Amino acid sequence: MTVTFRPAERHEVAAIVALLQDDALGSTREGSDLDTYLAAFDRMTTEGGNRLIVGIDGNRVVATYQLTFISGLSLRAARRAQIESVRVSSDLRGQGIGHRMIEDAVQRAKEAGCSLVQLTMNKSRTDSARFYGDLGFTPSHIGYKRNLI
Amino acid sequence: MTVTFRPAERHEVAAIVALLQDDALGSTREGSDLDTYLAAFDRMTTEGGNRLIVGIDGNRVVATYQLTFISGLSLRAARRAQIESVRVSSDLRGQGIGHRMIEDAVQRAKEAGCSLVQLTMNKSRTDSARFYGDLGFTPSHIGYKRNLI
Repeated sequence: MTVTFRPAERHEVAAIVALLQDDALGSTREGSDLDTYLAAFDRMTTEGGNRLIVGIDGNRVVATYQLTFISGLSLRAARRAQIESVRVSSDLRGQGIGHRMIEDAVQRAKEAGCSLVQLTMNKSRTDSARFYGDLGFTPSHIGYKRNLI
Repeated sequence: MTVTFRPAERHEVAAIVALLQDDALGSTREGSDLDTYLAAFDRMTTEGGNRLIVGIDGNRVVATYQLTFISGLSLRAARRAQIESVRVSSDLRGQGIGHRMIEDAVQRAKEAGCSLVQLTMNKSRTDSARFYGDLGFTPSHIGYKRNLI
Protein backbone atom coordinates (compact mmCIF):
# COMPACT_ATOMS: atom_id res chain seq x y z
CA MET A 1 0.00 0.00 0.00
CA THR A 2 1.09 3.55 -0.72
CA VAL A 3 0.57 6.03 2.09
CA THR A 4 0.98 9.72 1.34
CA PHE A 5 1.78 12.18 4.13
CA ARG A 6 0.47 15.74 3.97
CA PRO A 7 -0.99 18.46 6.25
CA ALA A 8 -4.43 17.55 7.59
CA GLU A 9 -7.57 19.29 6.37
CA ARG A 10 -10.34 20.43 8.69
CA HIS A 11 -12.87 17.85 7.44
CA GLU A 12 -10.42 15.09 8.49
CA VAL A 13 -10.44 16.02 12.18
CA ALA A 14 -13.09 13.42 13.11
CA ALA A 15 -11.04 10.67 11.44
CA ILE A 16 -7.92 11.85 13.26
CA VAL A 17 -9.70 11.80 16.63
CA ALA A 18 -10.84 8.24 15.85
CA LEU A 19 -7.17 7.29 15.36
CA LEU A 20 -6.22 8.95 18.66
CA GLN A 21 -8.90 6.84 20.39
CA ASP A 22 -7.76 3.65 18.64
CA ASP A 23 -5.01 3.15 21.21
CA ALA A 24 -4.47 1.62 24.65
CA LEU A 25 -3.92 5.00 26.31
CA GLY A 26 -6.02 7.11 23.96
CA SER A 27 -9.18 5.05 24.38
CA THR A 28 -9.60 6.25 27.97
CA ARG A 29 -8.76 9.90 27.55
CA GLU A 30 -10.42 11.25 24.42
CA GLY A 31 -13.95 12.68 24.23
CA SER A 32 -16.74 12.71 21.71
CA ASP A 33 -17.36 16.45 21.29
CA LEU A 34 -16.13 17.16 17.77
CA ASP A 35 -16.47 20.94 18.17
CA THR A 36 -13.80 20.93 20.88
CA TYR A 37 -11.38 19.21 18.52
CA LEU A 38 -12.27 21.48 15.61
CA ALA A 39 -11.56 24.51 17.80
CA ALA A 40 -8.15 23.03 18.69
CA PHE A 41 -7.45 22.42 14.99
CA ASP A 42 -8.24 26.07 14.26
CA ARG A 43 -6.01 27.18 17.16
CA MET A 44 -3.13 25.10 15.78
CA THR A 45 -3.30 26.97 12.47
CA THR A 46 -2.69 30.25 14.31
CA GLU A 47 0.49 28.92 15.94
CA GLY A 48 3.38 29.37 13.53
CA GLY A 49 5.24 26.12 13.09
CA ASN A 50 2.52 23.83 14.48
CA ARG A 51 1.49 21.16 11.94
CA LEU A 52 -0.98 18.29 12.00
CA ILE A 53 0.00 15.66 9.43
CA VAL A 54 -2.05 12.74 8.13
CA GLY A 55 -1.10 9.60 6.27
CA ILE A 56 -3.60 8.98 3.48
CA ASP A 57 -4.28 5.74 1.61
CA GLY A 58 -6.74 6.54 -1.15
CA ASN A 59 -9.24 8.72 0.69
CA ARG A 60 -8.77 7.06 4.07
CA VAL A 61 -6.86 8.66 6.96
CA VAL A 62 -4.71 5.76 8.16
CA ALA A 63 -2.09 7.55 10.29
CA THR A 64 -1.39 10.87 11.96
CA TYR A 65 1.21 12.82 13.88
CA GLN A 66 1.77 16.36 15.06
CA LEU A 67 4.97 18.26 14.27
CA THR A 68 5.92 21.53 15.94
CA PHE A 69 8.95 23.63 15.02
CA ILE A 70 10.36 25.43 18.06
CA SER A 71 13.15 27.97 17.76
CA GLY A 72 15.25 28.71 20.82
CA LEU A 73 18.66 29.87 22.02
CA SER A 74 19.97 26.59 23.47
CA LEU A 75 22.33 24.27 21.59
CA ARG A 76 23.83 27.11 19.50
CA ALA A 77 20.42 28.54 18.68
CA ALA A 78 19.07 25.22 17.43
CA ARG A 79 15.61 25.01 15.96
CA ARG A 80 13.90 21.83 17.19
CA ALA A 81 11.14 19.75 15.67
CA GLN A 82 8.87 18.04 18.17
CA ILE A 83 6.77 15.00 17.31
CA GLU A 84 3.55 14.37 19.22
CA SER A 85 0.44 12.17 18.99
CA VAL A 86 1.80 9.46 16.67
CA ARG A 87 -0.83 6.95 15.58
CA VAL A 88 -1.24 4.28 12.91
CA SER A 89 -4.62 2.62 12.42
CA SER A 90 -4.67 -0.59 14.48
CA ASP A 91 -5.49 -2.79 11.47
CA LEU A 92 -2.43 -1.53 9.59
CA ARG A 93 0.34 -1.73 12.20
CA GLY A 94 3.52 -3.70 11.56
CA GLN A 95 3.71 -2.74 7.88
CA GLY A 96 6.27 0.04 8.21
CA ILE A 97 3.82 2.95 8.02
CA GLY A 98 5.00 4.32 11.37
CA HIS A 99 8.61 4.11 10.27
CA ARG A 100 7.88 6.04 7.06
CA MET A 101 5.83 8.54 9.03
CA ILE A 102 8.74 9.36 11.36
CA GLU A 103 11.04 9.71 8.36
CA ASP A 104 8.46 12.08 6.86
CA ALA A 105 8.71 14.12 10.06
CA VAL A 106 12.51 14.12 9.87
CA GLN A 107 12.37 15.33 6.26
CA ARG A 108 9.96 18.15 7.15
CA ALA A 109 12.18 19.06 10.11
CA LYS A 110 15.25 19.33 7.90
CA GLU A 111 13.37 21.49 5.39
CA ALA A 112 12.36 23.78 8.27
CA GLY A 113 16.00 24.21 9.31
CA CYS A 114 15.82 22.05 12.44
CA SER A 115 18.95 20.40 13.81
CA LEU A 116 17.19 18.17 16.32
CA VAL A 117 14.01 16.08 16.44
CA GLN A 118 12.55 15.23 19.82
CA LEU A 119 9.57 13.40 21.26
CA THR A 120 8.45 11.84 24.51
CA MET A 121 6.91 8.42 24.91
CA ASN A 122 4.81 7.23 27.83
CA LYS A 123 6.85 4.63 29.76
CA SER A 124 3.95 2.18 29.45
CA ARG A 125 4.47 1.98 25.66
CA THR A 126 7.19 -0.64 26.01
CA ASP A 127 6.65 -1.87 22.44
CA SER A 128 7.59 1.52 21.01
CA ALA A 129 11.00 1.84 22.67
CA ARG A 130 12.68 -0.37 20.05
CA PHE A 131 10.77 1.43 17.29
CA TYR A 132 12.35 4.79 18.16
CA GLY A 133 15.75 3.24 18.81
CA ASP A 134 15.71 1.67 15.34
CA LEU A 135 14.92 5.12 13.93
CA GLY A 136 18.06 6.64 15.45
CA PHE A 137 16.54 8.23 18.55
CA THR A 138 18.42 8.20 21.86
CA PRO A 139 16.47 7.93 25.16
CA SER A 140 18.65 10.57 26.82
CA HIS A 141 15.96 12.42 28.76
CA ILE A 142 13.22 11.98 31.35
CA GLY A 143 9.86 13.44 30.37
CA TYR A 144 7.99 15.21 33.17
CA LYS A 145 4.31 16.20 33.07
CA ARG A 146 2.18 18.23 35.46
CA ASN A 147 -1.57 18.45 35.02
CA LEU A 148 -3.08 21.89 35.58
CA ILE A 149 -6.73 20.81 35.84
CA MET B 1 16.21 39.26 46.90
CA THR B 2 13.23 39.98 44.68
CA VAL B 3 13.33 38.44 41.22
CA THR B 4 10.81 39.60 38.65
CA PHE B 5 9.90 37.38 35.70
CA ARG B 6 8.98 38.94 32.36
CA PRO B 7 9.51 38.36 28.59
CA ALA B 8 13.12 38.88 27.53
CA GLU B 9 14.19 41.88 25.48
CA ARG B 10 16.56 41.65 22.53
CA HIS B 11 19.41 43.49 24.29
CA GLU B 12 19.36 40.78 26.99
CA VAL B 13 20.22 37.92 24.62
CA ALA B 14 23.95 38.02 25.42
CA ALA B 15 23.21 37.76 29.14
CA ILE B 16 20.84 34.85 28.51
CA VAL B 17 23.45 32.99 26.45
CA ALA B 18 25.93 33.52 29.31
CA LEU B 19 23.42 31.81 31.63
CA LEU B 20 23.00 28.91 29.18
CA GLN B 21 26.79 28.47 29.21
CA ASP B 22 26.98 28.66 33.01
CA ASP B 23 26.04 24.99 33.31
CA ALA B 24 27.67 21.54 33.28
CA LEU B 25 26.08 20.58 29.96
CA GLY B 26 25.73 24.06 28.48
CA SER B 27 29.42 24.95 28.86
CA THR B 28 30.37 22.45 26.15
CA ARG B 29 27.65 23.10 23.62
CA GLU B 30 27.11 26.84 23.28
CA GLY B 31 28.99 29.11 20.90
CA SER B 32 30.23 32.68 20.95
CA ASP B 33 28.60 34.10 17.82
CA LEU B 34 26.01 36.51 19.21
CA ASP B 35 24.44 37.15 15.79
CA THR B 36 23.36 33.50 15.58
CA TYR B 37 21.54 33.83 18.91
CA LEU B 38 19.99 37.18 17.96
CA ALA B 39 18.63 35.60 14.77
CA ALA B 40 17.10 32.79 16.83
CA PHE B 41 15.55 35.34 19.20
CA ASP B 42 13.99 37.12 16.21
CA ARG B 43 12.71 33.77 14.84
CA MET B 44 11.10 32.98 18.20
CA THR B 45 9.07 36.18 18.02
CA THR B 46 7.52 35.00 14.73
CA GLU B 47 6.36 31.71 16.28
CA GLY B 48 3.02 32.28 17.99
CA GLY B 49 3.13 30.99 21.55
CA ASN B 50 6.93 30.81 21.85
CA ARG B 51 8.22 32.90 24.78
CA LEU B 52 11.65 33.57 26.23
CA ILE B 53 11.36 34.64 29.87
CA VAL B 54 13.99 36.19 32.11
CA GLY B 55 14.25 36.57 35.86
CA ILE B 56 15.50 40.08 36.68
CA ASP B 57 17.06 41.33 39.92
CA GLY B 58 17.55 45.08 39.58
CA ASN B 59 18.98 45.30 36.07
CA ARG B 60 20.70 41.91 36.14
CA VAL B 61 19.42 38.86 34.24
CA VAL B 62 19.73 36.15 36.92
CA ALA B 63 17.54 33.38 35.45
CA THR B 64 15.85 32.30 32.23
CA TYR B 65 13.52 29.75 30.72
CA GLN B 66 11.65 29.21 27.49
CA LEU B 67 7.90 28.56 27.43
CA THR B 68 6.05 27.36 24.34
CA PHE B 69 2.28 26.94 24.09
CA ILE B 70 1.34 24.05 21.80
CA SER B 71 -2.26 23.36 20.82
CA GLY B 72 -3.17 19.88 19.65
CA LEU B 73 -5.96 17.34 19.40
CA SER B 74 -4.72 14.77 21.94
CA LEU B 75 -6.01 14.62 25.52
CA ARG B 76 -9.41 16.11 24.61
CA ALA B 77 -7.83 18.88 22.57
CA ALA B 78 -5.50 19.95 25.37
CA ARG B 79 -3.24 22.95 24.95
CA ARG B 80 0.18 22.17 26.42
CA ALA B 81 2.86 24.45 27.80
CA GLN B 82 6.41 23.24 27.32
CA ILE B 83 9.31 24.45 29.44
CA GLU B 84 12.83 24.41 27.99
CA SER B 85 16.28 25.79 28.79
CA VAL B 86 15.83 26.45 32.50
CA ARG B 87 18.77 28.23 34.12
CA VAL B 88 19.53 30.10 37.32
CA SER B 89 22.84 31.94 37.69
CA SER B 90 25.30 29.60 39.44
CA ASP B 91 26.01 32.07 42.25
CA LEU B 92 22.31 32.28 43.14
CA ARG B 93 21.24 28.62 43.17
CA GLY B 94 19.58 27.07 46.21
CA GLN B 95 17.62 30.22 47.07
CA GLY B 96 14.30 29.17 45.56
CA ILE B 97 14.59 31.20 42.35
CA GLY B 98 14.16 28.10 40.19
CA HIS B 99 11.09 27.06 42.15
CA ARG B 100 9.49 30.50 41.70
CA MET B 101 10.47 30.45 38.03
CA ILE B 102 8.63 27.17 37.39
CA GLU B 103 5.59 28.51 39.24
CA ASP B 104 5.78 31.58 37.00
CA ALA B 105 5.68 29.22 34.01
CA VAL B 106 2.68 27.39 35.46
CA GLN B 107 0.86 30.69 35.99
CA ARG B 108 1.54 31.79 32.40
CA ALA B 109 0.43 28.36 31.15
CA LYS B 110 -2.88 28.64 33.01
CA GLU B 111 -3.47 32.13 31.64
CA ALA B 112 -2.86 30.75 28.12
CA GLY B 113 -5.51 28.07 28.63
CA CYS B 114 -3.12 25.13 29.00
CA SER B 115 -4.17 22.02 30.89
CA LEU B 116 -0.73 20.43 31.00
CA VAL B 117 2.86 21.57 31.54
CA GLN B 118 5.67 19.37 30.24
CA LEU B 119 9.44 19.38 30.07
CA THR B 120 12.28 16.97 29.54
CA MET B 121 15.42 16.75 31.64
CA ASN B 122 18.71 15.19 30.60
CA LYS B 123 19.20 12.00 32.64
CA SER B 124 22.60 13.28 33.75
CA ARG B 125 20.96 16.10 35.74
CA THR B 126 20.36 13.84 38.74
CA ASP B 127 20.15 16.83 41.11
CA SER B 128 17.12 18.20 39.27
CA ALA B 129 14.91 15.11 39.52
CA ARG B 130 13.83 15.94 43.08
CA PHE B 131 13.38 19.59 42.09
CA TYR B 132 10.70 18.73 39.52
CA GLY B 133 9.12 16.08 41.75
CA ASP B 134 8.73 18.66 44.53
CA LEU B 135 7.02 20.94 42.00
CA GLY B 136 4.35 18.34 41.23
CA PHE B 137 5.81 16.91 38.04
CA THR B 138 5.56 13.16 37.30
CA PRO B 139 8.39 11.41 35.37
CA SER B 140 5.92 9.43 33.27
CA HIS B 141 7.74 9.62 29.93
CA ILE B 142 11.01 8.85 28.20
CA GLY B 143 12.47 11.72 26.20
CA TYR B 144 14.01 10.74 22.84
CA LYS B 145 16.28 12.96 20.73
CA ARG B 146 17.72 12.51 17.26
CA ASN B 147 20.32 14.91 15.91
CA LEU B 148 19.90 15.93 12.28
CA ILE B 149 23.37 17.42 11.76
